[in-house]
Amino acid sequence: MDLVPILIDAGKKVIDLSADFRIKDPDVYEAWYQKHTSRDYIKRAVYGLPELYREQLKETDLVANPGCYPTSIILALAPLLRNGVIIPDSIIADSKSGTSGAGRSASVGSLYCEVADGFRPYKVGTHRHTPEIEQELSLIAGNKLMLSFTPHLLPISRGILSTVYATLQTGIDSDDIDRMYTTAYDRESFVRYLGPGKIPATQYVRGSNFCDIGFSIDSRTNRIIVMSAIDNIGKGASGQAVQNMNLLCGFAEDEGLEGAPFFP
Amino acid sequence: MDLVPILIDAGKKVIDLSADFRIKDPDVYEAWYQKHTSRDYIKRAVYGLPELYREQLKETDLVANPGCYPTSIILALAPLLRNGVIIPDSIIADSKSGTSGAGRSASVGSLYCEVADGFRPYKVGTHRHTPEIEQELSLIAGNKLMLSFTPHLLPISRGILSTVYATLQTGIDSDDIDRMYTTAYDRESFVRYLGPGKIPATQYVRGSNFCDIGFSIDSRTNRIIVMSAIDNIGKGASGQAVQNMNLLCGFAEDEGLEGAPFFP
Amino acid sequence: MDLVPILIDAGKKVIDLSADFRIKDPDVYEAWYQKHTSRDYIKRAVYGLPELYREQLKETDLVANPGCYPTSIILALAPLLRNGVIIPDSIIADSKSGTSGAGRSASVGSLYCEVADGFRPYKVGTHRHTPEIEQELSLIAGNKLMLSFTPHLLPISRGILSTVYATLQTGIDSDDIDRMYTTAYDRESFVRYLGPGKIPATQYVRGSNFCDIGFSIDSRTNRIIVMSAIDNIGKGASGQAVQNMNLLCGFAEDEGLEGAPFFP
Amino acid sequence: MDLVPILIDAGKKVIDLSADFRIKDPDVYEAWYQKHTSRDYIKRAVYGLPELYREQLKETDLVANPGCYPTSIILALAPLLRNGVIIPDSIIADSKSGTSGAGRSASVGSLYCEVADGFRPYKVGTHRHTPEIEQELSLIAGNKLMLSFTPHLLPISRGILSTVYATLQTGIDSDDIDRMYTTAYDRESFVRYLGPGKIPATQYVRGSNFCDIGFSIDSRTNRIIVMSAIDNIGKGASGQAVQNMNLLCGFAEDEGLEGAPFFP
Repeated sequence: MDLVPILIDAGKKVIDLSADFRIKDPDVYEAWYQKHTSRDYIKRAVYGLPELYREQLKETDLVANPGCYPTSIILALAPLLRNGVIIPDSIIADSKSGTSGAGRSASVGSLYCEVADGFRPYKVGTHRHTPEIEQELSLIAGNKLMLSFTPHLLPISRGILSTVYATLQTGIDSDDIDRMYTTAYDRESFVRYLGPGKIPATQYVRGSNFCDIGFSIDSRTNRIIVMSAIDNIGKGASGQAVQNMNLLCGFAEDEGLEGAPFFP
Repeated sequence: MDLVPILIDAGKKVIDLSADFRIKDPDVYEAWYQKHTSRDYIKRAVYGLPELYREQLKETDLVANPGCYPTSIILALAPLLRNGVIIPDSIIADSKSGTSGAGRSASVGSLYCEVADGFRPYKVGTHRHTPEIEQELSLIAGNKLMLSFTPHLLPISRGILSTVYATLQTGIDSDDIDRMYTTAYDRESFVRYLGPGKIPATQYVRGSNFCDIGFSIDSRTNRIIVMSAIDNIGKGASGQAVQNMNLLCGFAEDEGLEGAPFFP
Repeated sequence: MDLVPILIDAGKKVIDLSADFRIKDPDVYEAWYQKHTSRDYIKRAVYGLPELYREQLKETDLVANPGCYPTSIILALAPLLRNGVIIPDSIIADSKSGTSGAGRSASVGSLYCEVADGFRPYKVGTHRHTPEIEQELSLIAGNKLMLSFTPHLLPISRGILSTVYATLQTGIDSDDIDRMYTTAYDRESFVRYLGPGKIPATQYVRGSNFCDIGFSIDSRTNRIIVMSAIDNIGKGASGQAVQNMNLLCGFAEDEGLEGAPFFP
Repeated sequence: MDLVPILIDAGKKVIDLSADFRIKDPDVYEAWYQKHTSRDYIKRAVYGLPELYREQLKETDLVANPGCYPTSIILALAPLLRNGVIIPDSIIADSKSGTSGAGRSASVGSLYCEVADGFRPYKVGTHRHTPEIEQELSLIAGNKLMLSFTPHLLPISRGILSTVYATLQTGIDSDDIDRMYTTAYDRESFVRYLGPGKIPATQYVRGSNFCDIGFSIDSRTNRIIVMSAIDNIGKGASGQAVQNMNLLCGFAEDEGLEGAPFFP
């Protein structure tokens, strides 16, 4: 946040991979992160999720590139909230991330022997992606909402899978939901909506900029379970940054991102 | 279910690791599994969770050894439902299991290259452990309840971690919950209650008969998140069967089960 | 071997990924494999290692695509044998392969729980790639040689690393060897010679058609240790087949193979 | 090496897990390690491999606990060198170790994402276990010998597998070798000699103090390939230290070490 004003004032375009310009309310930012030293620049930033803000991204000079967990959760829920078919305060996002999400700095918690053949939640109820997710979901819903979000550490290198639960409004069936996802993502290059009952897996997006989405309706409890998978380094970070750069610079949106997923 | 009557009628004691005698209502069993050919023997079976049914297990000759997922979820929720501090129909159990849960038969889905460096949900809303979990939770709650249960396949050999969400009744705080877990598990050999805010991990129970339990309260959404970890082969199957055998035979309950977890 | 004659006689070009046309002496083939039913076609086959047989590959209609282990070992040793700087019968190749080398058929030995967190040799002294390796090394050396070859199963999906030992002829130093590798591979698109003392790793070739090669001289024992790494599915199988197809069809040799390795 | 004199002079018994008292020649130690500040104490140290030095270990007050690689290689070769059936200078040891061998300090090279789904040699021709292995093998052979030793890093937590090659003296067959291993290890609690043609795996010794050994004879090249597997933390470090403590203190040699291996 110290560098961004210098770059912007020098006429440069900036895609910021940190969280500094993602949260529109600086008080919320400071409650979850630290003192914000460039408050004046927050307003000009566009949240870098092209599926939501494509047109604004073409015009801005400051992109706040989204967090990895938020990308997976927001893309999973956007069509449902936009159409008002779930109860907003019923949302629970249970997310699982590969180890590259912790970066490449040497820490005991990221050692092979600590991670391999193991699994655990972390920062339960306290992860700093929570206000980012809530901000964007609230904007889509048109009302402030809160969710429960639990991250977990997977013994894999790359990939996030979010399993998102919400209670359906009455009278909504699988065909309705199917139409909403199809409408939302049919023309998107990087969201692959798999269809009702279809289940994504991190393997099938690894190394790519894809977000795979499927859902199931549990009619016994009237809940929808939406599952989304991304490569946390791809669509969850650098891939999305490239996609944003393409928009910013007027390139084809998939320039440099056509690579197929890597499996196995 | 074909063998059990023969063994029982011959005066033998049976610990059945299959699901055949876990479900008390044969119609429910048949709806989720297959035709039941020994309906008369269902009633005499005791559900083999010693923390719930210790005294009955000492007297029976037929133990229905619990499923791995149910063990992790029931032990996580029993103190809360017994004390009526959660809203029964708010329960969501997001569970993740190691690959040994699929057994040792040769199938493409369990191949190293299919599982390693990947993660996915499966049988979303349709896993056959659902009625078993609901039966036992309903018995504890004193009322029929339903939950959403989503299993996932982890790239680890052994371990289940369940992340269980429920909405708290009003006026319940962390100290209350702490007391309930302490009361419930203080004298249990194989449940290690970790305390408020403490997070279990599959690594720390691997190779053991332990069930580790921790919880967090998300006061923003008034939900409790309970996390439990077991070794799916240990407390989730064979270990628990040995524990049941010890009760059946009048041995010390931890005979043969004193082994410490294996990490890493 | 039953299909190849039909295709060839119909005027088609064939790249055979099986071992059927790799071994020039049908008796040797039959000693290690099975009865050969198309002996007449063996002679027209060219061994599909472009770094050795590029010109012939452009002219043939039948390519015997090399085995994965042979590719890693032959490329490691070719410059040394061609220059006569190692004692031919001193060669020992200790090779380690990822699990995809076993194919995708369901077998207990390839299950996740059997392979993960484990390591073992297999087919010690009896692997069928042995005569293929010896045939090609003998052709380069100009004399029949034999080697010891031990394959091992790695808990990784993709990758082969061969550690190859040989006794140096007297008077050869590291600079001499360096020059030989540079000369051999300087203009090759898919062999990345790393230099003296440099060590390859399977990670750095994963998903690519590269073969990375480094060496060390152990002056205490007068041995050279050559290390080579390939992706067993890439340069070890399909990637090399595409490279051969490009030669056969007059395409640019790296057409479709420009992808960078995938790490992590 | 600074603490050991203090402890010994105070009348304590010491089992040193470092390399400081393993190398009998302080000049060799200083060539591979660092300046030795307690040279006078080297002579009283006994190399802590019970299968070789059991009687001396019962009488000493200073045990130099062996390195993990040396344990696996010395136990593999001792019966052959003792019986003079291999050419001493033909030995090549290709060893592969799990990541716990690097300890638990935070380093980039031991991060999950650096190690998982990868494999590489390291310290080729320069690993400091080399003089330790050569010292002990030379003592057994009765003549100074040198070997080539190459360590590799495996993507597993625990386990070492050494594949050791040597040229047989003429006239030695598999039955001869079989008798030598049987004689050497028949009464050992922690060496499981598997028999001719049998292949060990790290899985089957994980978490135990066992060393599993098998061999194959490659009659084509007149080489023997001996394979040995240990848990590098068990028989390769702490387990062996406990075994030595048992000898030092007059306890049963397997006290505290009876645990079965952990698989999977």
